[in-house]
Amino acid sequence: MENDAEINQRASLLPIWQVAERIGLSADDIEPYGRYMAKVRMEAVRRAARERRGRLIYTTAITATPAGEGKTTVAIGLTQALGRLGKRVAVCLREPSLGPTFGVKGGATGGGLSQVAPMVDINLHFTGDMHAVTSAHNLLAAAVDNHIHQGNALGLDPKRVSWRRVMDMNERQLRHVVVGLGGAGDGVVRETGFDITAASEVMAVLCLSRDLRDLKERLGRMVVGQTAGPSRSRRWVSAREIGVVGAMAVLLKDAIKPNLVQTLEGQPAFVHGGPFANIAHGNNSILATQTALGLADYVVTEGGFAADLGAEKFFDIVVPQTGLVPDVVVLVASIRALHHHGGASKGDLHTPNRDALQKGLSNLDRHIANIRKFGLPVVVAVNRFAADDPGEIRAVIEHCRSLGVRAEAADVVARGGEGGLELAGAVLETIEEERPDFRPIYRWEEPLAGKIERLATEIYGADGVDFTPEAAAALEDLSAHGFGGLPVCVAKTQFSITDDPSLRGAPTGWRLKVREIRPSLGAGFVIALTGEIMTMPGLPKEPAALRMDIDETGYVTGLS
Amino acid sequence: MENDAEINQRASLLPIWQVAERIGLSADDIEPYGRYMAKVRMEAVRRAARERRGRLIYTTAITATPAGEGKTTVAIGLTQALGRLGKRVAVCLREPSLGPTFGVKGGATGGGLSQVAPMVDINLHFTGDMHAVTSAHNLLAAAVDNHIHQGNALGLDPKRVSWRRVMDMNERQLRHVVVGLGGAGDGVVRETGFDITAASEVMAVLCLSRDLRDLKERLGRMVVGQTAGPSRSRRWVSAREIGVVGAMAVLLKDAIKPNLVQTLEGQPAFVHGGPFANIAHGNNSILATQTALGLADYVVTEGGFAADLGAEKFFDIVVPQTGLVPDVVVLVASIRALHHHGGASKGDLHTPNRDALQKGLSNLDRHIANIRKFGLPVVVAVNRFAADDPGEIRAVIEHCRSLGVRAEAADVVARGGEGGLELAGAVLETIEEERPDFRPIYRWEEPLAGKIERLATEIYGADGVDFTPEAAAALEDLSAHGFGGLPVCVAKTQFSITDDPSLRGAPTGWRLKVREIRPSLGAGFVIALTGEIMTMPGLPKEPAALRMDIDETGYVTGLS
Repeated sequence: MENDAEINQRASLLPIWQVAERIGLSADDIEPYGRYMAKVRMEAVRRAARERRGRLIYTTAITATPAGEGKTTVAIGLTQALGRLGKRVAVCLREPSLGPTFGVKGGATGGGLSQVAPMVDINLHFTGDMHAVTSAHNLLAAAVDNHIHQGNALGLDPKRVSWRRVMDMNERQLRHVVVGLGGAGDGVVRETGFDITAASEVMAVLCLSRDLRDLKERLGRMVVGQTAGPSRSRRWVSAREIGVVGAMAVLLKDAIKPNLVQTLEGQPAFVHGGPFANIAHGNNSILATQTALGLADYVVTEGGFAADLGAEKFFDIVVPQTGLVPDVVVLVASIRALHHHGGASKGDLHTPNRDALQKGLSNLDRHIANIRKFGLPVVVAVNRFAADDPGEIRAVIEHCRSLGVRAEAADVVARGGEGGLELAGAVLETIEEERPDFRPIYRWEEPLAGKIERLATEIYGADGVDFTPEAAAALEDLSAHGFGGLPVCVAKTQFSITDDPSLRGAPTGWRLKVREIRPSLGAGFVIALTGEIMTMPGLPKEPAALRMDIDETGYVTGLS
Repeated sequence: MENDAEINQRASLLPIWQVAERIGLSADDIEPYGRYMAKVRMEAVRRAARERRGRLIYTTAITATPAGEGKTTVAIGLTQALGRLGKRVAVCLREPSLGPTFGVKGGATGGGLSQVAPMVDINLHFTGDMHAVTSAHNLLAAAVDNHIHQGNALGLDPKRVSWRRVMDMNERQLRHVVVGLGGAGDGVVRETGFDITAASEVMAVLCLSRDLRDLKERLGRMVVGQTAGPSRSRRWVSAREIGVVGAMAVLLKDAIKPNLVQTLEGQPAFVHGGPFANIAHGNNSILATQTALGLADYVVTEGGFAADLGAEKFFDIVVPQTGLVPDVVVLVASIRALHHHGGASKGDLHTPNRDALQKGLSNLDRHIANIRKFGLPVVVAVNRFAADDPGEIRAVIEHCRSLGVRAEAADVVARGGEGGLELAGAVLETIEEERPDFRPIYRWEEPLAGKIERLATEIYGADGVDFTPEAAAALEDLSAHGFGGLPVCVAKTQFSITDDPSLRGAPTGWRLKVREIRPSLGAGFVIALTGEIMTMPGLPKEPAALRMDIDETGYVTGLS
């Protein structure tokens, strides 16, 4: 059987201008990158984003195993199914990051017959957005240290520079570094570190900006550190004061334009923006989603990781500032993940096990209940794997229906859009019959600690929150400076609904540990780092990179 | 008067497929990046590079002032002039680096009416080659440290890891760093540093590779460090042993394809590969030059900095392995640089000063003599600046003619190709009347120290070479390991023909100081770092980035 990369590389694709035409974009509205990728010009984005035409189908998932449960694949398969039903449809996804691609995952463009293409290019440099974010972020870092080195007119405290550097790489070696060693001409000695580019505030800003002007305003509001002196007189220093906001925007001038590619069945796919959902806000750009909603009748969009991460952040951070209320939420589950949550061991996830399945439903139920708390209609999609027991799939579907939730199996890996027709039907019915009655979990005007407590108790199922003294002090400091009204972006493990990656199911009787607070004033939120979550991953013992190769004809192997 | 960026951004450009057609490339032979940039597909590169059709015009310069004397501008203007004379012509240039663009220079695409376009995009991310080199380089770095962290099966000595990291940024703060701090899961504590991407061995490899297979072989030969143990048993560890050569080649699969853009007068311009000539080998990719030579009758190519740097490295490193012998060398001089070499002060370079001019000719004469040592015909181009005194220009031209060298003024900034017609005539006459009798300065089989000494005495005008004990030991070690037959790439200041940036003219009675040796076994040369030269520049007090901006329509200012 062919693997994903083989299927993708031998697929016959439409020229990208033909894909654009399917949703009313002319060849003049796009800028080609090769034959099968393009950026949408800002004029066309402005035109399309002016009015919402389409229904928004938000795809999320239950808490996944490390292998992932195929949320992206289901989103693509559902899009292909809606296409087969004659709907004018588009899908919006996040861009892959080189770090995980060369580390563990080996790619992020769907699977089997439900993929976006060209997968090799999308998984590599694509249209350069990640590199643009990296460059803009690190230009600011260089300018901050240069400012200190050249006389430090702003009085920045080198010990209180909070702006780190980024690299799109899994680089544990760069998590904690000392820079500025050498001689007098080699800068200022201080401790700092690198995050992965997906965690950069510049990435969040890019994904939340409405246009170039908004981008510049947000970049200017980002803070890079504090001045020296006693706490009363200390103040935050902004990127605007450093003076490179214009240059950063110049570096991002193309990255802000949504990227257009296609599904294996020829539907338009906007793949744009790549913040991770565990350490960042985890959703593709609002410009991509708005553009798609202005051009298509149905837009499938996807948030990262489980519904307590990407989806929660979309509902609490993105929707209140954009009005992009979903018409329906598709919650992706898999039999193997339910086995996992029910206690099955790693090697046994594909073995039928009704007992584990039954227990594992606790995780699914929690996510269903959470989505309902937001007032949103929900449909469950059971992503079918080849080894799945049909009886177990039926059991999950019946369980959902007993809760009054539509549920269907999605056989989109093996059958493409054809395998998603039942799911598409359930989604369309739900859109027709149910109306969203959207309400966020917290109001922005609540205190910062209160917002985190509400997420902990109402979404994650904790009894409460423990703040380290540093975190508590940082929250107070932010409130005192007038930033208490920002929403909260919780950085939390994707392997559990709790902050402990080893806990499965839907645990209760635990407390969320918030160890560090980082202001993201340009993105417009406050990051709360919980548990052991790290903003720079490491490579595993056998990185995916070891398996990759390219032959003389340019054919790539080892991306999957 | 309009500045360079204004001229460039308002120029009406040809669609890139029309530019390609001018040298016989079809729309199928190229991959567009937007409307005005493209990569040439490898099939077309192979076809074109099979046979040399054109004459090669190598453009270099005398030792420049920090502002530069317009070598790129003259190369472009000469190309435009040859185009006006009805010749089938193309120009080959190196790609700009973001570091200097945001640091001092603000761009590297020519000036006035002699530019390549679109300058904003070429100066920013272009087609992503620099980012691809950065990613490939840093993937290897991450894999090396991961190898050590995960058990170190190869027995690498953390203290002898020679593979550094790179960033395309002027980042003095990262010259000397300690990485791997933090806890047990955060890697191995050791000292290292970052170089600018233009100094990466991966960049050199990319520029010297004949095809994807050669690229992989060269990447595999690169060394990353030495094993632990007493010096007798120590051995070099190669990138191939680390296991990510295939993945690096995957990252470079598009970067290896030459980029096609156009001059302001519509001639094809291959802008591909960007090693600096002071700290690296300083020439665009051999694939670009070979492709151009297979398609055009005249190819103007340009080497970085003065003739003791980019040109010397082209003649001694590139030509012996490619046979790309130039038919003629154009040596660019300017009145202000000659004033500078004659002792005029920085503020007075544009003031007529016959005495300084006369003295400054020593630098021009040295470079002319050097080019003749290589057995190559030479033409001097005096790049005219608006403030130049016509009498001084005439004096320089007459001086050259007294040496038997054709010389013409080039008024290409103000007048474009029209202003380069006399120069083009002199170049064409020289090609018709003189034949290159090429001989490199050294034979590769001479000892490494002997090669450096020959360059020092015959090209730079030194009395001899002083090696630090570390450098001498490294040369011995390399010879003992069988690498004594590699050519030498000297890293040396661009501000003087000596290793001391403050010395002007053509000094004698000094000795070259070689302080460090770095093997570049993939590139196939040994780097000798001299004087105070650094492989990571810093930002000035007022970086060019502070002046840059973009408005809501996407119009960029401050790049120049």
